Amino acid sequence: MKRRELLAAGAVALAGCAGEQADCGPGSGPAERFDWKLVTTWPPNFPGLGTGVLKLVEMIEAASGGRLRIKVYAAGELVPAFEVFDTVSSGTAEMGHGSAYYWKGKTEAAQLFTAIPFGMTAMEMNGWMYHGGGLELYQELYEQFNLVPFPAGNTGVQMGGWFNREINSLDDLQGLKMRIPGLGGEVLKRAGGTPVNLPGADIFTALQTGSIDATEWIGPYNDVAFGLHQAARYYYYPGWQEPGPVLECTVNRDAWLSLPEDLKAIVGIACSAINDQMTAEFVARNAQSLDKLRAEGQVEIRSFPPEVLDELRRIADEVLQDLVQRDPAAARIHDSFAAYRESAAGWSAISEQAMLNARGG
Amino acid sequence: MKRRELLAAGAVALAGCAGEQADCGPGSGPAERFDWKLVTTWPPNFPGLGTGVLKLVEMIEAASGGRLRIKVYAAGELVPAFEVFDTVSSGTAEMGHGSAYYWKGKTEAAQLFTAIPFGMTAMEMNGWMYHGGGLELYQELYEQFNLVPFPAGNTGVQMGGWFNREINSLDDLQGLKMRIPGLGGEVLKRAGGTPVNLPGADIFTALQTGSIDATEWIGPYNDVAFGLHQAARYYYYPGWQEPGPVLECTVNRDAWLSLPEDLKAIVGIACSAINDQMTAEFVARNAQSLDKLRAEGQVEIRSFPPEVLDELRRIADEVLQDLVQRDPAAARIHDSFAAYRESAAGWSAISEQAMLNARGG
Repeated sequence: MKRRELLAAGAVALAGCAGEQADCGPGSGPAERFDWKLVTTWPPNFPGLGTGVLKLVEMIEAASGGRLRIKVYAAGELVPAFEVFDTVSSGTAEMGHGSAYYWKGKTEAAQLFTAIPFGMTAMEMNGWMYHGGGLELYQELYEQFNLVPFPAGNTGVQMGGWFNREINSLDDLQGLKMRIPGLGGEVLKRAGGTPVNLPGADIFTALQTGSIDATEWIGPYNDVAFGLHQAARYYYYPGWQEPGPVLECTVNRDAWLSLPEDLKAIVGIACSAINDQMTAEFVARNAQSLDKLRAEGQVEIRSFPPEVLDELRRIADEVLQDLVQRDPAAARIHDSFAAYRESAAGWSAISEQAMLNARGG
Repeated sequence: MKRRELLAAGAVALAGCAGEQADCGPGSGPAERFDWKLVTTWPPNFPGLGTGVLKLVEMIEAASGGRLRIKVYAAGELVPAFEVFDTVSSGTAEMGHGSAYYWKGKTEAAQLFTAIPFGMTAMEMNGWMYHGGGLELYQELYEQFNLVPFPAGNTGVQMGGWFNREINSLDDLQGLKMRIPGLGGEVLKRAGGTPVNLPGADIFTALQTGSIDATEWIGPYNDVAFGLHQAARYYYYPGWQEPGPVLECTVNRDAWLSLPEDLKAIVGIACSAINDQMTAEFVARNAQSLDKLRAEGQVEIRSFPPEVLDELRRIADEVLQDLVQRDPAAARIHDSFAAYRESAAGWSAISEQAMLNARGG
């Protein structure tokens, strides 16, 4: 099956059944059952992410009347978090849930499908994915790995992190040891800081003992669950490094092709539904957790000064240009991403941004 | 069936199958077929809205393998737009698609489930609906009408509209004849303007002939489709009246209860998926249309001065308080809405708003 045909089937949630409606899955044997495994990059019941995967699976099982059953394995239960990609690629598990930028060791271009510094918000990423060519490029990139990817959740804007000092100028970034992975870490490094890569479980202690000066994680909901507000001073900064990180559901391509059309539709639609619901859950839980932090006097919100943001933005462009120079796939995807971002930013400026500013005034 | 049970089934997209997974719809007879009608408030193939409904139906038909087939009737094809509510309530059609504020003649409280001036963005509305008690209140309000409602799309922030003059002060609103329905119209009236209610099809001529001075409609995508940029001067203002209007899918309660569990799940999940996708489509198409308007020099973007926004916001609070005073159902819903908005706005200020401002700087 050609990629184009695969897309036509896979993207039912976007395009509907490709042919006549009468051809949509009537041949699916109602007795045919599938028992699949889904491996995730998230710890068991991890708030918002791990629990979102459980909800995704519940939706698929309920909508299929139990014809497609999926057993979920959290990180470490079947394979470690960072083996999810290979495990689904090889078919050892039929599905995976994680985020594309974890796979930059396989293909650096994947990072563009999650988030880049000063990139796009959740709503803008969805616009690019569904209507700006993003999803086609995503599917094309993953085809060589025998994977069919779907956007399946978004954390919304991630916070800039917790700092044991105020950042009042670029000088304050010099020598700053901060847990910040990926492209954001590269930007910090070029700005004079020292990015450190630590798994989530080690962050609290590192911050508390002072072996790092700062850390980003996700947002109030998950940060509070880790106790980060109690590990460091209370300076909490808005984000710049991940404006709307997309979470992904991957399906092994052979497993995908083995599904009847109606179950393909159900998987595609459920991924879109969890994209809707997980984003909403992060909005709701982050707001609740922030309220609690404020009520308990456990946070001091600060803003990066404009000169710091300007410099981080300038460096972020450099980092992206370097990525584009060394990776032709990234160059092609970045062309699409950058053009879309410019267009979307023009609209956001007079819609979401103008509205939020008008409301808050 | 009690509402609570109905919700448990209806909210499968949110809560998953209520009981043991083995009970999720295995009893659904695979041969049982349903032929339903869906009536909409939108003209045939209306961009984004009418086309979104067709996509919703395609998803349901594909996921059900054709067991639930739905014939879509645009406004006027089976019943006029503003009879959608009664038509689904009575069961003449099993499903409807429109927006809750159209039904304020039935129950004024319904408006809170679409949008109120300076209310909540699309992402915030989803947070309230799914995790802030909004959906439960929505279902409770509609139960008396024999309807089960689902959020099923969002246009995102609607533009403030096209004006034949610049609005530089409150004086410029005095006597302004503007097509603006609902609560926004009431706010304009109290600010000294003259709100006019016109169906979409009549707006272009009214604006062109000068029988109105201004009009809001939706956003660049739909406004350009109506030619509004050619009907008036080019002053185009960001919105304040509808920050994130929710579109709704309603299902006749008896028809809903007749569905096997797996088809209930499919309908619920498809509504959530179209909520995801329609929102993304408006982001994408509005951005494209705005680019085109700008490239062709057919728009001059202006901003309402802070004093105008402050006054509109003050009046909007008054209008809401009056609604709450005269309608106990609205009071209860508004309590939930207002508390949620305050919390969500605190989070948006340091997430979406801070990010958009940082990116644009």
